[in-house]
Amino acid sequence: MSSLPTIAPLDQPELDAALRRRMDGKTKPLGALGRLEALALQIAQVLGTEHPRLEQPQMVVFAGDHGLTAQGVSAYPADVTWQMVMNFLAGGAAVSVLARQHGLSLTVVDAGVRCDFAPQAGLLLRKIAPGTADASQAPAMTADQCATAVEAGRDVVRGLPGNALLLGEMGIGNTSSAALLLSRLAGLPIERCTGRGTGLDDAGLAHKVRVLSAVLQRHAGAVEPLQALAALGGFEIAMMVGAVLQAAEERRVIVVDGFIVCSAVLVAHALQPAVLQRCVFAHRSQEGGHPLLLEHLGVEPLLDLGLRLGEGSGAALAWPLLESACRILNEMASFESAGVSRGAEA
Amino acid sequence: MSSLPTIAPLDQPELDAALRRRMDGKTKPLGALGRLEALALQIAQVLGTEHPRLEQPQMVVFAGDHGLTAQGVSAYPADVTWQMVMNFLAGGAAVSVLARQHGLSLTVVDAGVRCDFAPQAGLLLRKIAPGTADASQAPAMTADQCATAVEAGRDVVRGLPGNALLLGEMGIGNTSSAALLLSRLAGLPIERCTGRGTGLDDAGLAHKVRVLSAVLQRHAGAVEPLQALAALGGFEIAMMVGAVLQAAEERRVIVVDGFIVCSAVLVAHALQPAVLQRCVFAHRSQEGGHPLLLEHLGVEPLLDLGLRLGEGSGAALAWPLLESACRILNEMASFESAGVSRGAEA
Repeated sequence: MSSLPTIAPLDQPELDAALRRRMDGKTKPLGALGRLEALALQIAQVLGTEHPRLEQPQMVVFAGDHGLTAQGVSAYPADVTWQMVMNFLAGGAAVSVLARQHGLSLTVVDAGVRCDFAPQAGLLLRKIAPGTADASQAPAMTADQCATAVEAGRDVVRGLPGNALLLGEMGIGNTSSAALLLSRLAGLPIERCTGRGTGLDDAGLAHKVRVLSAVLQRHAGAVEPLQALAALGGFEIAMMVGAVLQAAEERRVIVVDGFIVCSAVLVAHALQPAVLQRCVFAHRSQEGGHPLLLEHLGVEPLLDLGLRLGEGSGAALAWPLLESACRILNEMASFESAGVSRGAEA
Repeated sequence: MSSLPTIAPLDQPELDAALRRRMDGKTKPLGALGRLEALALQIAQVLGTEHPRLEQPQMVVFAGDHGLTAQGVSAYPADVTWQMVMNFLAGGAAVSVLARQHGLSLTVVDAGVRCDFAPQAGLLLRKIAPGTADASQAPAMTADQCATAVEAGRDVVRGLPGNALLLGEMGIGNTSSAALLLSRLAGLPIERCTGRGTGLDDAGLAHKVRVLSAVLQRHAGAVEPLQALAALGGFEIAMMVGAVLQAAEERRVIVVDGFIVCSAVLVAHALQPAVLQRCVFAHRSQEGGHPLLLEHLGVEPLLDLGLRLGEGSGAALAWPLLESACRILNEMASFESAGVSRGAEA
């Protein structure tokens, strides 16, 4: 097993200055394209070029089951995890539809689903185990399982072409893992981190908070990022931690979906803070702790559409904005080339 | 000259119920696609079908000059209006780049630019006059000019194919007209409606507010929507009022860009409130009164990216979300068709 990569901060002042000059020379008032300008510069900085082109974008959906569902923390039965994997592959899920719309290659990874899938196109079989252990009784994963999952996530990314990675996930029960990781790693009360997931009512939400509180108490000693990940996480989350680290090392642009993917970024960030420079946060989800998690990371997402689906759907919806950002930098005319007069500001 | 159309409220309870059933049967928790679901239903309602397909979307950019620029209300010289028209047509402006990205047909309309354009592909010559009168000295338009411009806007839309209209504009000085219309028609103080436009500094902004206050006083009697439009508006804004009314009558989906386009919707809404049901508001601009104007109309835009460029750039950026909304409705599997179990909620 290889050790985790060290992610160096991007430090390229000459490129940054050149990018700023190019952007400010485009035929528009200074800063008038708002966050699209910052996005263009970020993508260019990650790719290390004045002329960023996003190539062969890969949507990867990591799926895994959660032993904690035995405690009734989700409104949906655990079977939905494997059923939705089949739906992703058949093209009928939201993320399938949106990936098709935007020309994103879609790969589904069985990180630990409670189902024996037959090999098929678009599915990578990397199952660690058929579901994690029930975290209310034991650590969700052993340290070995966790390390294997992280390494598998790195390996999945190594095998994919392109320079942009969009992350999605599926796993009934995984908003519980995300809430637990947020509470533990950001030091926030579990009540504030917990949401309704796929649709708990008030009583269900109160029960979920009680279960998660007990889980946190049971694993009070799991405070280091990888310890917390093993005790509280899921196989799909652990693989995404590896995927984020690997993509960051390879300087791919990482598009982060909602609460669950963000919880993987939280762990990766705790290990290697500079991963954040490579991450584009797609949207602010309605799910429980997601706004808090974004705030904790100090990041502002692109979209705020009240989504709470996961799967990578928010990442796919934000994707055209990344394409637009690159096109602005590459295709817009400058004041000089277009013969447009500058304003008093310039 | 024809009279203005009457826009009837959309009233189709059977279709609405059928759409809600279809959306709730898709493989996702109820409501989990947030505002995308509402958007899908709105588009389907405007097009009057359970299977909405957006066809031949038309981006139309109306351009006009403003006599009020003589009073120093803009950071950019008025020549930039015609220079940017040339840039739109040459493909180098933001809206050109974004329209190309998303396969939007781009038409530029000379509503009243201070320049004699040679006929060319993509440009409609509908000039009312080479710029409006200086509204600090006289009404910006005569009542006849205003009526002619509104009718021309209707005529432009009549001549375009497709079932979706994206509106954009160009006109140095036109944030002043938008601020004036907002103040007059929504009864808001002009200070709150006025912004920095293309980039005024503090002194420039204070001067702009003084000029606009005086304009409002001079035209204190122009309180009816069309009177206000003539006294305070611009040719491009008046044409967009006609375009909105015509597109609403034809039940096209209308994608509204930023502050200026929104000010045309404000006038159209004051004339025919039901136009609003046909409008998708693309984004919340950073420009002065735009958030107030959206609030006044009681609408929530899709994007909030700090844009303040105009041209239709925000409408183009939001476009893929409309496409996604239709695809969700048309392409996603149902729980039944995909063999996915429903949750406790359903």
